[in-house]
Amino acid sequence: MSTLITGIGELTTNDPDLGRLTGAALVLADGVVAWVGPASSAPAADTRVDVEGRAVLPGWVDSHTHLVFAGDRTAEFEARMAGKPYTAGGIATTVNATRAASDDELSSVIQRHVAEAVAQGTTYVETKTGYGLTVADEVRSARIAGEHADEVTFLGAHLVPPGADADSYVALVAGEMLDAVAPFVRWADVFCERGAFDEDQSRTVLKAAAARGLGLRVHGNQLGEGPGVRLAVELGAASVDHCTYLSTSDIDALAGSNTIATLLPACDLSTRQSLPPARELLDAGATVALASNCNPGSSYTTSMAYCVTTAVLQMHMSVEEAVYAATRAGALALDRADLGHLAVGARADVHVLDAPSATHLAYRPGVPLTHAVWRKGERVR
Amino acid sequence: MSTLITGIGELTTNDPDLGRLTGAALVLADGVVAWVGPASSAPAADTRVDVEGRAVLPGWVDSHTHLVFAGDRTAEFEARMAGKPYTAGGIATTVNATRAASDDELSSVIQRHVAEAVAQGTTYVETKTGYGLTVADEVRSARIAGEHADEVTFLGAHLVPPGADADSYVALVAGEMLDAVAPFVRWADVFCERGAFDEDQSRTVLKAAAARGLGLRVHGNQLGEGPGVRLAVELGAASVDHCTYLSTSDIDALAGSNTIATLLPACDLSTRQSLPPARELLDAGATVALASNCNPGSSYTTSMAYCVTTAVLQMHMSVEEAVYAATRAGALALDRADLGHLAVGARADVHVLDAPSATHLAYRPGVPLTHAVWRKGERVR
Ligand SMILES: [Zn+2]
Ligand SMILES: [Zn+2]
Repeated sequence: MSTLITGIGELTTNDPDLGRLTGAALVLADGVVAWVGPASSAPAADTRVDVEGRAVLPGWVDSHTHLVFAGDRTAEFEARMAGKPYTAGGIATTVNATRAASDDELSSVIQRHVAEAVAQGTTYVETKTGYGLTVADEVRSARIAGEHADEVTFLGAHLVPPGADADSYVALVAGEMLDAVAPFVRWADVFCERGAFDEDQSRTVLKAAAARGLGLRVHGNQLGEGPGVRLAVELGAASVDHCTYLSTSDIDALAGSNTIATLLPACDLSTRQSLPPARELLDAGATVALASNCNPGSSYTTSMAYCVTTAVLQMHMSVEEAVYAATRAGALALDRADLGHLAVGARADVHVLDAPSATHLAYRPGVPLTHAVWRKGERVR
Repeated sequence: MSTLITGIGELTTNDPDLGRLTGAALVLADGVVAWVGPASSAPAADTRVDVEGRAVLPGWVDSHTHLVFAGDRTAEFEARMAGKPYTAGGIATTVNATRAASDDELSSVIQRHVAEAVAQGTTYVETKTGYGLTVADEVRSARIAGEHADEVTFLGAHLVPPGADADSYVALVAGEMLDAVAPFVRWADVFCERGAFDEDQSRTVLKAAAARGLGLRVHGNQLGEGPGVRLAVELGAASVDHCTYLSTSDIDALAGSNTIATLLPACDLSTRQSLPPARELLDAGATVALASNCNPGSSYTTSMAYCVTTAVLQMHMSVEEAVYAATRAGALALDRADLGHLAVGARADVHVLDAPSATHLAYRPGVPLTHAVWRKGERVR
């Protein structure tokens, strides 16, 4: 079953040789891009779809979400926006609700949010555990995550559960919990931040994960400067996420490494923080990705378009840089060479906009622009 | 033909007596709200729609748009976002394209954008002339605007056309042009700003318009502090729009008047300016409205939700204040007592969100949340 997409107004391939094309066509077959080139010489296919001058780009790669959760934190958000103190538990609220939820409830939450993301052009979703924080609950979270998301990350080191001793909990995470969860996940992550895990604790967890063959990711530098970025680079993590507060040496370290700086602007805005120094990172030569950080506490959105819009309007990224960050760089942050671009052989994840160019993602803030989506070559919207 | 809406999770009425209701139902009949009260005592109606726990609010009132235009300014936007100089004409580019366009082309542009707005929950749209700038072109713009938008504003004083003498142009606008356009419009507006019209020129146009029975609106204080707000208050304008840069005395003047401060945050972000001092205005007692300023140059969005999201996340408005600003206060800025609220007798303009509360408009940035829309009691989405 092959599909020829014609009438493309502008094709963002994210391929260094192909670049951005006009007058191009695309053939999807067997789940991958089978052909790309001038529409005039396109081969035949089983189905032909004319997108009537619309822009086509790779589907969004959302490389950072927390979708295995239950419970409601609307009141906490309202209080924060009203500038009122809110003493209920933050992440711990979600932990309690997640532990109490049935498998079916958790499945239905993640399924609903993944579907919502796909409807907005997201074709690949990473998600994390981290609201279980016991061996059994983390295993369950990882298993359910794997049934609905494309990549799963173990985040037992999300916070020290209320009442637990930090060092004992780190030993549990880096030992028994990691052993139990490892078969279900490809990545391990740690929240390296004041109030969560310090540098030594973070290193312990990450090294234990690496020893079991897991890829590494780090939550770092969200609330202030700290050791997160440094540690991620030292250990060769695929990505360090948030990067809201960076020193010059953090920026230089990222620029000199293969670690992707994954920025989460919807989170920064939803918590009324500063936006990250995207321009400085790019100018220094670091690779910048954008992700939603979808979670019910600090960033309850599945909209990668909102992240791109914000990156362009408020973080001084160009449209091209922001689109690349939300597609190809997200794929690099997940070490997936086959995603986030549209050269021959890439996975056939295609996003058609209701606009003549990708620029409209920033030029038309808030307007829902997803017209059609193919995932692995199948039309899903 | 009457419709009973039940299963409402949260009903924002914007009525001072009714407030925000749970467990409520709504009956729409003959284009107005016929009944509102507890679902348990709701009367029967021809049709019954169960919104299954979703939030219901008045449709957005977009009190500031510029939708009679032709041409494309994507390249100008791209250059601005890339920090590159762009010497092409700005507003004059649109003026040239608008003059050159056929009636059918202009109609199709405004129709498409109004439909796009309605699909996102907007049920009432003001739009302006201002890309004609000759008597014939302004009359044509006003006529076409009136065929597709709910309210039309004469903005002959948008800029001095290239090559024209400013004072002669002001005399034309305040004389022959106003006489010719007045039958097609309810409002007159002037762009009172450095580079556009100064205080005296603005006063001349506005007083001439008031003498012909038109209501007054002002574009003011967009690029810096200036006389716009002061003049609007002095002349009893219904609204002064932008208000990005305000002095303390501007804020006091607004608080002591019936002139609405209409903020256009999508414009401020799209031009990489500061956001307006919404909190200071509200705390001083001014009435704040939010509008899209949809136009192809400085704010190419129809998304009132984006304005609300931005107002809450970045302008320190509460969700309640922002929703009120984008509905009821927009109606007040257009002097329409029957819009922007859902008490009995109000126009039956209803917006159903795919979320349990209006808070989700800010809690879920960028996620398209419009589930259903009624306009004058008719389901339009
Ligand atoms: Zn996170
Ligand atoms: Zn305007």
